[in-house]
Amino acid sequence: MRIAVLGTGEVGSAIAGKLVALGHQVAMGSRTADNERASRWAAAAGPGATHATFAGVAETAELVFNCTSGIVSAEVLHAAGAQNLAGKVLVDVSNALDFSRGRPPTLSICNTTSVGEQLQEAFPDVRVVKALNTVNNQVMVDPGRLAGPHNLFICGNDASAKSEVVDLLESFGWPRGAVLDLGDITAARGLEMYVPLWLRLMGPVGGADFNIAVVRAG
Amino acid sequence: MRIAVLGTGEVGSAIAGKLVALGHQVAMGSRTADNERASRWAAAAGPGATHATFAGVAETAELVFNCTSGIVSAEVLHAAGAQNLAGKVLVDVSNALDFSRGRPPTLSICNTTSVGEQLQEAFPDVRVVKALNTVNNQVMVDPGRLAGPHNLFICGNDASAKSEVVDLLESFGWPRGAVLDLGDITAARGLEMYVPLWLRLMGPVGGADFNIAVVRAG
Repeated sequence: MRIAVLGTGEVGSAIAGKLVALGHQVAMGSRTADNERASRWAAAAGPGATHATFAGVAETAELVFNCTSGIVSAEVLHAAGAQNLAGKVLVDVSNALDFSRGRPPTLSICNTTSVGEQLQEAFPDVRVVKALNTVNNQVMVDPGRLAGPHNLFICGNDASAKSEVVDLLESFGWPRGAVLDLGDITAARGLEMYVPLWLRLMGPVGGADFNIAVVRAG
Repeated sequence: MRIAVLGTGEVGSAIAGKLVALGHQVAMGSRTADNERASRWAAAAGPGATHATFAGVAETAELVFNCTSGIVSAEVLHAAGAQNLAGKVLVDVSNALDFSRGRPPTLSICNTTSVGEQLQEAFPDVRVVKALNTVNNQVMVDPGRLAGPHNLFICGNDASAKSEVVDLLESFGWPRGAVLDLGDITAARGLEMYVPLWLRLMGPVGGADFNIAVVRAG
């Protein structure tokens, strides 16, 4: 598949790298065509890896990952272009973490809305699926690294888009039954508001290499 | 121990009932001395169970549970009286769930603060420990009902207060190692902001009888 990854940070690099390893044609998108991190990534990732502007990668992609900060994601999608994104699945991995008041960060968008919802509202022709924002980038692309079953949560308004994303997640190593569908895109509030707890759990756990599992009644 | 439970709802009743079963002297507090729910609870719970006003139960208690809605908790503690609470451990179980705009509820306090923090700030002589707000009342008092190990999260500024609460939680059935200390009371933001995810998980799980477990690297 031709897949665009918007964002050149750790999350974008981890997802783009995994997608290349799985045999996809992956284009990393950034603000400028000569972005240094994207150039370095594409050169190191080898055949199947390219880079271009947000609009350049969105135009030719069949599916798009949003791996930018949730604070700027709407702006990034405008740069990518509504016409380039229309009808496509957008996997929104973002969190609107605001470090401007120090650590721990707060969320610049939350509670009565979410990044996922705002993107879906601003781009009604895009099939937004929120996923993967609740785990570290290592766990995203290598869920088997943890010592036992654990869960990933997705949501979105388009059932077929969610089904496509579950297939892709399965190729990442997420067992189909481990992915819980929380319903429409408004569930992105819960997925994004979980992140402050995730950040605090890094203390007692001793790092970011963990996830949560839902444990039901016996 | 003489324990006050502020609040007459399902959470207050579940916790008060468990404390009576464990042999504590439990007083349920409410706005008025003749509160119907508190009267019924005390009559049904038998010896060791009484009820009175918030101030009445706080005055004689050695430890206090806040089981009121987070929206009114500060007001309830003012009614209980700072002098009646001073020096005591307050286990804050509350969530500031605002249903005024319908379901799912939003949080009336979140992100840059939390109910736990606001109570600690308003009552600096009280030893606030946030705990139990992340699970259903059945799981709170009977954690063994779930099919496997799972975790509870606590936080607070006073280490000895947290230690007392861990002892009490162990008597509820929470294994000591299952209770993760997230640090100071500012971690209450994460604990309270997790609740919107918990509410959405009720869909795929099929009810509220569940919890989460932290799964670490293998």
